[in-house]
Amino acid sequence: MIYLDHAAATPLTSRTLEAMTPYFRERFFNPSAPYLPAKRVREAYEAAKTDLARIIGAKGVDMIMTSGATESIQLAFTAARGKVLVAATEHAAVLEAARSRKHDLIAVDANGVIDLDDLHQKISDEVELISISLANNELGTIQPLSEVAELIREIREDRRARGVKSPLFLHSDASQAMSLIDINVSRLGVDLLTINAAKVGGPKGVGALYVGRGIELKPLQRGGGQERGLRGGTENVPGVIGFTVAAQEVKSHLNSNRKKYQEMASILKRELAHTLIISQMGEKVKILGDSRRQLANFVPICFTGVDAERLIYKLEQQEIYLSTGAACAANKGTKSHVLAAIGLGDEEIMGSLRISLGSTNTAEQMPIVAGALARAVAEELHRTHKIKEAHE
Amino acid sequence: MIYLDHAAATPLTSRTLEAMTPYFRERFFNPSAPYLPAKRVREAYEAAKTDLARIIGAKGVDMIMTSGATESIQLAFTAARGKVLVAATEHAAVLEAARSRKHDLIAVDANGVIDLDDLHQKISDEVELISISLANNELGTIQPLSEVAELIREIREDRRARGVKSPLFLHSDASQAMSLIDINVSRLGVDLLTINAAKVGGPKGVGALYVGRGIELKPLQRGGGQERGLRGGTENVPGVIGFTVAAQEVKSHLNSNRKKYQEMASILKRELAHTLIISQMGEKVKILGDSRRQLANFVPICFTGVDAERLIYKLEQQEIYLSTGAACAANKGTKSHVLAAIGLGDEEIMGSLRISLGSTNTAEQMPIVAGALARAVAEELHRTHKIKEAHE
Repeated sequence: MIYLDHAAATPLTSRTLEAMTPYFRERFFNPSAPYLPAKRVREAYEAAKTDLARIIGAKGVDMIMTSGATESIQLAFTAARGKVLVAATEHAAVLEAARSRKHDLIAVDANGVIDLDDLHQKISDEVELISISLANNELGTIQPLSEVAELIREIREDRRARGVKSPLFLHSDASQAMSLIDINVSRLGVDLLTINAAKVGGPKGVGALYVGRGIELKPLQRGGGQERGLRGGTENVPGVIGFTVAAQEVKSHLNSNRKKYQEMASILKRELAHTLIISQMGEKVKILGDSRRQLANFVPICFTGVDAERLIYKLEQQEIYLSTGAACAANKGTKSHVLAAIGLGDEEIMGSLRISLGSTNTAEQMPIVAGALARAVAEELHRTHKIKEAHE
Repeated sequence: MIYLDHAAATPLTSRTLEAMTPYFRERFFNPSAPYLPAKRVREAYEAAKTDLARIIGAKGVDMIMTSGATESIQLAFTAARGKVLVAATEHAAVLEAARSRKHDLIAVDANGVIDLDDLHQKISDEVELISISLANNELGTIQPLSEVAELIREIREDRRARGVKSPLFLHSDASQAMSLIDINVSRLGVDLLTINAAKVGGPKGVGALYVGRGIELKPLQRGGGQERGLRGGTENVPGVIGFTVAAQEVKSHLNSNRKKYQEMASILKRELAHTLIISQMGEKVKILGDSRRQLANFVPICFTGVDAERLIYKLEQQEIYLSTGAACAANKGTKSHVLAAIGLGDEEIMGSLRISLGSTNTAEQMPIVAGALARAVAEELHRTHKIKEAHE
């Protein structure tokens, strides 16, 4: 098997599963219970939160553990009462959270980088929250968050000077970025940050929201007062411990992984470019995004005029697994709003694949992938050519 | 170790962990991804949902998987726009969900059974949701849900006859009941039902909401359209599979477990009654609730005039673990609203313990518990007596 869809899901590392297992079994206690073994579980839980927070340059007390990125995002959006601005290329979870209130989309350029002028112009006094992912989940495009944070600081000052009372917060969904970018909330200048265990080798169903001091959220679920009253429900102790261990592993390999994926990606691109069919396709083959502003593990490719879903099916026969884009969107057969936002036409969108490398990949796999992909593209072009001929 | 707090948390059974593990590792795929191994994960996920639904007499399509009971309850409450009625003894998650809107509490009797007359009288035309747990989490009291459902049917008919348009739904939090009661949503007559993996030997952070046909909910978190658009976020595949396996195990042992816990509970009560100190305390020792209408694994005891928290501490020294009530409430040192609702005075509430038996217990442990508990009570009475004497 060659798995090329690490942006959709990652396997739990063995260390992560090992760290979680005792908390399923002998250390299963409710962390709020009053006896010693339960208090030890509470300590382990809080220590894991602190360690996780440290990874993004925060404190444990600033973290709210959730059931995943979708919940974190939804919770982050409760900071705003007014209008929100989100990048046009955001994940469905952000777009849906925005759609339930007054909102506007921030335009992006051909590489998926947000248009800072468009953003600036759209920050009217009623805007209270801006949500821009640190890295996009289809293109891997890394957004200039620090520049956005700088702009926000200026606007806040201007609002203060003019006596405008509405707050202005910056939220970033860093789910996809965390496995490749060294995240520091202060350096990024974000007020709220979403992270997700399932994207970094941790368990599904676990996420966190970093919340800057003084920001008031409206709990989505109250109950036993957990997470400082901001998120009720018995703490998912094994899940949070797993998240932390996975995030630590990812953090300690950030540089080596980046290098590794860069190498793999260049082998893949080079091998692909050398195949007859791809070299003949010319302009019709495009690597999407700008690799200088892209997560190292992302290789989004567009084969104009080819049906990408058929390519996926053909590669699947050879146990090579990849997708056209976000799994949840791909599943519904809807056109990628991300690729539409960067200006691709329907034929280009239909022909686009998302390759996202990860822990399961090796450099040796890349020529195999390139060969299989080129063959599949050739077969598809041949097939459509024959269909065309038959019609003529 | 003797663990007597199964109402707070349960260890994962080995079969449950075994069933989950492949979905953490080799079957880690995103169930929405388009390639075969991911589709197999989707199938396993849907099959698990169907099996879980079957356990409560429902269909997979009627279940929304959540991150636990607190979320399920919160989601259930979105069915109502108008006023809600909840039993005064409900879990904090239900009470908090009620408090965020117009609500009223249903009175209970000395055993914690809801007062049907009080309920009837409070169902004004603006009431749209009634939430009553199937069994209480501190007393184990089983509520007459079928009678409530019958009453609701009558009121619905009356509303129809009078042209009153507001709907009236019955929600039940069956988290605590599921390990001992054979649940069937039709037989119970509920419209919405909450269940929780962590209370039946499954993983923390996984719950479900049964939703009767035609009931419209307002999603708490949208996103990739999962759970029929009612609950976004990548599905917690290992969690849901673990929940189902644990629930199946519990279901297949319902009768034998009930018998086992009844036996243990009577040994415990008998041994306790035979100790000198307890026999001397007379009226000051009370087993709370009515065992004929109580989960078989619950033995809530009140030692009037004794500080229950000190008892817990003393028993902890002997590796016997139990609590005063709900873990999340006990943690905050607040007085149990459940015990207050059944009419206990402060001294009685302060002296109350919740013993909840479970899979880790054996009959042999019961005399040990009774002995340790009696000794602890005797020491405490002696201590307070000496303090009193010193003051006189």
